[in-house]
Amino acid sequence: MNPSRPGGGDPVSALSTPVPVIDEDVVAGNIARVQAYMDEHGIAFRPHIKTHKIVAMAETQRAAGAKGINCQKVTEAEVFAAAGFGDILITYNILGAEKLHRLRALNGRLEALKVTADSAVTVDGLAQAFAADRPLTVLVECDTGGGRCGVQAPEEAVVLARRITGSAGLRFGGLMTYPKPGSAAAVEAWLSQALELLEKEGIPCPTVSNGGTPSLFEAHMVPSATEHRAGTYVYNDRAMVRAGHCTFDECAMHILATVISRPTEDRAVIDAGSKALTSDLLGFSDFGHIVDYPEAVISGLSEEHGVVDLSRCAGRRPEIGEKIRIVPNHTCVVSNLFDEMVFHRGGRVTRVEAVAARGMVW
Amino acid sequence: MNPSRPGGGDPVSALSTPVPVIDEDVVAGNIARVQAYMDEHGIAFRPHIKTHKIVAMAETQRAAGAKGINCQKVTEAEVFAAAGFGDILITYNILGAEKLHRLRALNGRLEALKVTADSAVTVDGLAQAFAADRPLTVLVECDTGGGRCGVQAPEEAVVLARRITGSAGLRFGGLMTYPKPGSAAAVEAWLSQALELLEKEGIPCPTVSNGGTPSLFEAHMVPSATEHRAGTYVYNDRAMVRAGHCTFDECAMHILATVISRPTEDRAVIDAGSKALTSDLLGFSDFGHIVDYPEAVISGLSEEHGVVDLSRCAGRRPEIGEKIRIVPNHTCVVSNLFDEMVFHRGGRVTRVEAVAARGMVW
Repeated sequence: MNPSRPGGGDPVSALSTPVPVIDEDVVAGNIARVQAYMDEHGIAFRPHIKTHKIVAMAETQRAAGAKGINCQKVTEAEVFAAAGFGDILITYNILGAEKLHRLRALNGRLEALKVTADSAVTVDGLAQAFAADRPLTVLVECDTGGGRCGVQAPEEAVVLARRITGSAGLRFGGLMTYPKPGSAAAVEAWLSQALELLEKEGIPCPTVSNGGTPSLFEAHMVPSATEHRAGTYVYNDRAMVRAGHCTFDECAMHILATVISRPTEDRAVIDAGSKALTSDLLGFSDFGHIVDYPEAVISGLSEEHGVVDLSRCAGRRPEIGEKIRIVPNHTCVVSNLFDEMVFHRGGRVTRVEAVAARGMVW
Repeated sequence: MNPSRPGGGDPVSALSTPVPVIDEDVVAGNIARVQAYMDEHGIAFRPHIKTHKIVAMAETQRAAGAKGINCQKVTEAEVFAAAGFGDILITYNILGAEKLHRLRALNGRLEALKVTADSAVTVDGLAQAFAADRPLTVLVECDTGGGRCGVQAPEEAVVLARRITGSAGLRFGGLMTYPKPGSAAAVEAWLSQALELLEKEGIPCPTVSNGGTPSLFEAHMVPSATEHRAGTYVYNDRAMVRAGHCTFDECAMHILATVISRPTEDRAVIDAGSKALTSDLLGFSDFGHIVDYPEAVISGLSEEHGVVDLSRCAGRRPEIGEKIRIVPNHTCVVSNLFDEMVFHRGGRVTRVEAVAARGMVW
């Protein structure tokens, strides 16, 4: 935990830096705004917990109207299952004896556990593990243009769906995609074709799960989808601002950092390096947006130092000892570095939450 | 901890992936090789614990002949002080009431605590904090070309040294630099000039601390330095291979990952993403070296997926379910993601160590 161990009401400006802090009002606004959009369009919303990894945050999302949660790893799901979440979709190909063993234990105690698969190898592994057990629900992952996992064509989705329905231990749960941002029309074309083929085969498709924050507000342009998954929207970050999803005022996470050196007129060094901001660029050429000095450029990171180029700062320049606020390029990876997260309202600490699923990558 | 909770003798191949593992023999070889070089040249060696953050590793380095350890943060130093390390150099400008308070507590119980400073602001803050306390030893950080922190010229080093010697609560401990790799001659010129100026002023300079792994074996080309600091050498990584410091056989850390998808002939997806490998590029354009498939390219990372381009693989290609070994671009940031580290000899687990200073960035 942050050595200064903040209590309620403490000013965040007194925290030992570098430290990420979350604005309560902004986070509440982000949750309300996205849930209202999903409700308006009749799309079930399934938040991805990867961004915050905090039980209380998922509870807030559920209270706002979310239907179930999304995890990426079995170990993440275990944390949220233990906290009472009964509807969990793990959007991952789960392979290997160790993971299948844990998945079986999880399926035994959850109301609605679902996983995804994009190959016969994954389906057969799941089928073998669950043959003599409570059946597991499996969705087929579809590569609708994202270029990561997923079957490559609607016909292949049907072949895999048939393999799932033909396996004693498995139930076909539907289709899942993690799309390329801004490709709603192509995603819809892909999914609607797959649905048509499934219908022809007489295979019912209960769920079509679409996802992603960058083009979240285009979710209604994929009418074949019954649900949408998103994680980053809860905090937002610099990449989401660039994607047009939000403004900087809607970014709930800031990393507070201290200027520890001003070796030259044009160079400041801050105490946030790659062990606080991470090296995620996401297409940027620098490592975060300094709210207080928007013309300053975090041009390089070492582990515990950030080098800031001040040459474009027309007005005042930050001084040694001054604290600055940074909107990170990518908020989800920052969460994964810290065991606890400090929340505040108007700069006063409201609570400290355990990042309970931090490091749960197995 | 890794869900499979390995015990001694277990095969690492049974571990749930992604997981970093450390080869005992390679790590022992790295420690012995570097210590022997330092001994041969009469340079005191001060390992930087940032790379492993493990108490037992620092104990091994000390047993091999290391003189003290190097930390970057007060909170890291606290972990190693509690474990019985008495000679700690924190190579950082320490600012702010919270950190100075903790630093005072640390100085009260350590045999030899030293910090660095590169500005009057930092020196004056330390002086005020230690005025009525056991004196703190402060080295002047010098920018000999590294372009991070440090005074810009030997004359400035002398001005700051004088400010330290003139402060009741402080002792001047010498000079410190984190040099640009491969610039031994320039570093020596800078430091020897500063030493000459200090001598003229009658200011004794007990220590000159040089550092870095990339050009570690050029440490003897900086005869003004009395000690050398290095962290990465203990595990080594792909960047150190490129720098000519070591071979891939001398890289002790591998990240074990599983191929979870083969969506196309040329694409594999592994379960190691940026939450296992980090996005550190260090000048590379891809995210690690796959030992078993050196022609495969980890072309993209999302948080829990690594996309691997197989188009250049002439022979066999990895199959779904297969485990592969990756040498990370940068080992130090990988350590900071995992609470425990698995060690092995010949693929059999020897021990699991707590990464006790993981996340200690404040």
